[in-house]
Amino acid sequence: VIRTLVKDLSPLVGSRVEINGFVEFTRNQKRMQFVIVRDITGSVQAVYDRKTGESGISEAIEELTVGSAVRLTGNLVKNVDVKLGGLELQIEMLSVLGRAESPLPITHDSSLELQMDWRYISLRSPENLLIFKVQTIMEGAMREFWTKHDFIEIHSPKLMGTASESGGELFTLPYFGGTAFLAQSPQFYKQMAMAAGFERVFEIGPVFRANPSFTSRHDTEFTSVDMEISWIDSHEDVMRMEETWLSFVIGRVAAAYGDEIKELFGVTLTVPTTPFPRIPLSEARSILEAQGHYISHKEDLDPEGERRLAKYIADSLGHEFVFVTDYPAEVRAFYHMRYDDRPEITKSFDLLWKGLEITTGAQREHRLERLQAQAVAKGYALEPLRDYFSFFKFGCPPHGGAGIGLTRLLMTMLERRNVREVTYLYRGPNRLNP
Amino acid sequence: VIRTLVKDLSPLVGSRVEINGFVEFTRNQKRMQFVIVRDITGSVQAVYDRKTGESGISEAIEELTVGSAVRLTGNLVKNVDVKLGGLELQIEMLSVLGRAESPLPITHDSSLELQMDWRYISLRSPENLLIFKVQTIMEGAMREFWTKHDFIEIHSPKLMGTASESGGELFTLPYFGGTAFLAQSPQFYKQMAMAAGFERVFEIGPVFRANPSFTSRHDTEFTSVDMEISWIDSHEDVMRMEETWLSFVIGRVAAAYGDEIKELFGVTLTVPTTPFPRIPLSEARSILEAQGHYISHKEDLDPEGERRLAKYIADSLGHEFVFVTDYPAEVRAFYHMRYDDRPEITKSFDLLWKGLEITTGAQREHRLERLQAQAVAKGYALEPLRDYFSFFKFGCPPHGGAGIGLTRLLMTMLERRNVREVTYLYRGPNRLNP
Repeated sequence: VIRTLVKDLSPLVGSRVEINGFVEFTRNQKRMQFVIVRDITGSVQAVYDRKTGESGISEAIEELTVGSAVRLTGNLVKNVDVKLGGLELQIEMLSVLGRAESPLPITHDSSLELQMDWRYISLRSPENLLIFKVQTIMEGAMREFWTKHDFIEIHSPKLMGTASESGGELFTLPYFGGTAFLAQSPQFYKQMAMAAGFERVFEIGPVFRANPSFTSRHDTEFTSVDMEISWIDSHEDVMRMEETWLSFVIGRVAAAYGDEIKELFGVTLTVPTTPFPRIPLSEARSILEAQGHYISHKEDLDPEGERRLAKYIADSLGHEFVFVTDYPAEVRAFYHMRYDDRPEITKSFDLLWKGLEITTGAQREHRLERLQAQAVAKGYALEPLRDYFSFFKFGCPPHGGAGIGLTRLLMTMLERRNVREVTYLYRGPNRLNP
Repeated sequence: VIRTLVKDLSPLVGSRVEINGFVEFTRNQKRMQFVIVRDITGSVQAVYDRKTGESGISEAIEELTVGSAVRLTGNLVKNVDVKLGGLELQIEMLSVLGRAESPLPITHDSSLELQMDWRYISLRSPENLLIFKVQTIMEGAMREFWTKHDFIEIHSPKLMGTASESGGELFTLPYFGGTAFLAQSPQFYKQMAMAAGFERVFEIGPVFRANPSFTSRHDTEFTSVDMEISWIDSHEDVMRMEETWLSFVIGRVAAAYGDEIKELFGVTLTVPTTPFPRIPLSEARSILEAQGHYISHKEDLDPEGERRLAKYIADSLGHEFVFVTDYPAEVRAFYHMRYDDRPEITKSFDLLWKGLEITTGAQREHRLERLQAQAVAKGYALEPLRDYFSFFKFGCPPHGGAGIGLTRLLMTMLERRNVREVTYLYRGPNRLNP
């Protein structure tokens, strides 16, 4: 007998099957004993009639603890009274492969902090398993799209010799008598790939931020999804690539798990049409002003502004996404390219989904003199950026790209409220374990 | 006119095309001017007849520097005298999008250290580009296999609160008034996924080793490829999974780049048949002893032993791979499971390819008491391993897995001699830049 997954049981009624999983529940009646076992695909009821009289099985079931890893073998029968798929496994053999201490230290109602302490038990719930199944299919679809479109995968170093783009929130560590920094983003290294002629690259990997915040959206380590493409004419090329990519990715997730997402999270996953709406920040500002919500000319949208704009777009265009473009240079990184005829405006964008910013992107300034001038104007010292500037010295094509936080994307997609829920093992200022 | 990749030019003879790429070479004759331009797919010759007399083109070509990023438009014609595909682009427009300073700071003959200093220029060579194209298709195939077989992708944290498996070679960093460690492997966290009921997981991500070595095979950061599966009966299940996976992956690489690998590296990529040969370490030792090469009973194979064994397997079985199994407990990690009837032998394996060890794998000990006893016997303090041990307290299925270094695999596949060649940006004790 080979192990069968619970989801594949149904056609096997009448045969002998083996089930491997965790004990979810047991009930010992005078004559009948019931065990519910769950594997990654679902739960099934197993039953033992004490009258069968096999040696030891009845006692083993009596001693079963919730959470134990077990292997059951027996005849699979139809039983219309059973809620779990109308199936029942009549136990003939039972092995406890990994016994759980009793009781489990957490329940579904335990606090989030306790869930984090016992993360591996918390992750056993169908909702939490679904999050990581969705993550898997989502990343798979991302890479499938990129590979089809001739992107090269890179693994840029996380140990750096100089501080990267933003000086703050940087982790430093002793490094063979010197100092190293942990990468806050692969930004400079994905741009290096453009100078290296890779043309199109992607990377999914960890980034580190020494951010002391304890909010529901901050962490000190997260998975960053980055892409960069060469030979573009403007940030419009980046937006076109990103919307096509996201639409493909969400389509794949919806096809694989749309129903389960609806069932477990109550969220209807809509596959967005392309092109996504685009709106320059100045226009967005006017729309919000007309609603009585004012945003200064040198500022980014605030969360309330993002929500209002998303509602406006949803109401007027029926779309969950909107690219906000053309941010003023004041609120963007020094390496964002600016319009030749409007040097105060960058060729940049943010992407909002359901009113939350999920991406920042731009065409990059690849002309060394302008790039250095923009850095100086922002108050950067040139020396720490020497390696970065060098990437533009010996021929660099025009390029641009975007970055997106994997957990931010998952949170928005599944409408979870806390980054801790969608991170395998969350890291924060006072959370380094388990 | 839309940009065409060099590899797609051939059917477009007679039409106007646009090429984007780096200047590889220029020659200015009295009447004719030649420019060779390369993009990621190949090189093409472009030509300008000064008699054409377009304003500025002739001068722009005169000033072109090698390495510059250019965009050319013109008529594509057949020219049997041209080596590069018998094609020639008759220049009608030329834009220098990113000018290279002249001369380039390195040539193909520059030292490896200099190549590292100017990594992005070094990466422009067809050989180096091929390495990362191969890496991309290789990882894509790995994930395709895993996804087909219901694996879940995880991103385990690289910031840890306690030292992981081996205490040595650990990077530490200040962390909000405390101390954090950089992960040396996702070992403990992929095992945690088994306790969480993920059943099968994979991860491709960075790991960090504070190793002061300067050899051709050591680095302080590399990409680790890890997988772990539940509900196994022994390490044989892990080997079966790994050989099927590797055979699939190598097949995909051979199909996509076998010819180019042969052409640029002189390496014939053979898709291995399954099952791979297996040999217990004790038998391998006897074979080597018969050749006069002695290995102590408490030691792993030495590099010379690995090479001899590989030759023996190649000669006798015609296979490039061999699993060496059943290592003595002395030379394996404390968490490797041991045979019930031979507690001095672990249910473990190494995988050799072309005489180089590329994987270590095993069934893990998931029974807490034995696991702790094995740790104690190896001299570990239990307290730092508290979180790890906890994973086995509340029900953990039997499981096992393997890990493989991405660069080690690429080196072996492409027969490169130095890990620096197959790493996007190598990190070593005195190399943190660029």
